[in-house]
Amino acid sequence: MGRPVKGRPRLKLWVVFGDVKFGEGRAELLDAMERLGSFKQAVERMGMSYRAAWGYFRELERAAGLKLLERRPGRGPQGGTRLTPQGRLFLRRYRRFRQGLDPLVARYFEQSFRD
Amino acid sequence: MGRPVKGRPRLKLWVVFGDVKFGEGRAELLDAMERLGSFKQAVERMGMSYRAAWGYFRELERAAGLKLLERRPGRGPQGGTRLTPQGRLFLRRYRRFRQGLDPLVARYFEQSFRD
Repeated sequence: MGRPVKGRPRLKLWVVFGDVKFGEGRAELLDAMERLGSFKQAVERMGMSYRAAWGYFRELERAAGLKLLERRPGRGPQGGTRLTPQGRLFLRRYRRFRQGLDPLVARYFEQSFRD
Repeated sequence: MGRPVKGRPRLKLWVVFGDVKFGEGRAELLDAMERLGSFKQAVERMGMSYRAAWGYFRELERAAGLKLLERRPGRGPQGGTRLTPQGRLFLRRYRRFRQGLDPLVARYFEQSFRD
């Protein structure tokens, strides 16, 4: 019974501000927005509702006390809705957290199921 | 922007064997079964379907290569469906893993969102 178990851990993860959750789907939406330079196009690409997505980020900004999105005038790579510097920092931190967690959890799983 | 973010992490976690997931709901079912000495009563208490729950544990045992449940004859505290020693070990390890993970994730969250 001391042998390690065959399974592996799987986790879903959010960062929660009050009653507003931020997770992988919304992080992908922000990535797509940065790539496309357009919130609207990113939302369509992800098959989301524009109103719901915009309302969600309003709520997130309020709950987190962060300004994440800004609309910049004009077309081209600088125009349209973009992440603020605060928004870029938040997304970078989330990515670091999310990616670093998998090996941490895997190691802890091995420990927990072996001793 | 160096101040810590207000949010906190929330996670849902499973141990996965092939295509069979074991998580909090099923762990609670096993706890209830041990307490009540009856798989059937535990399933009813949790509002689950007996057939589905029993089928699930069959699948889990097959996928994990573990014998988790055994039916013992008779009434009283020793009778009915119980965890095998392997099943008790598995549940204990799962609990240890699940409970130890929250502080680990909280610490890592603080680190990731502060630097």
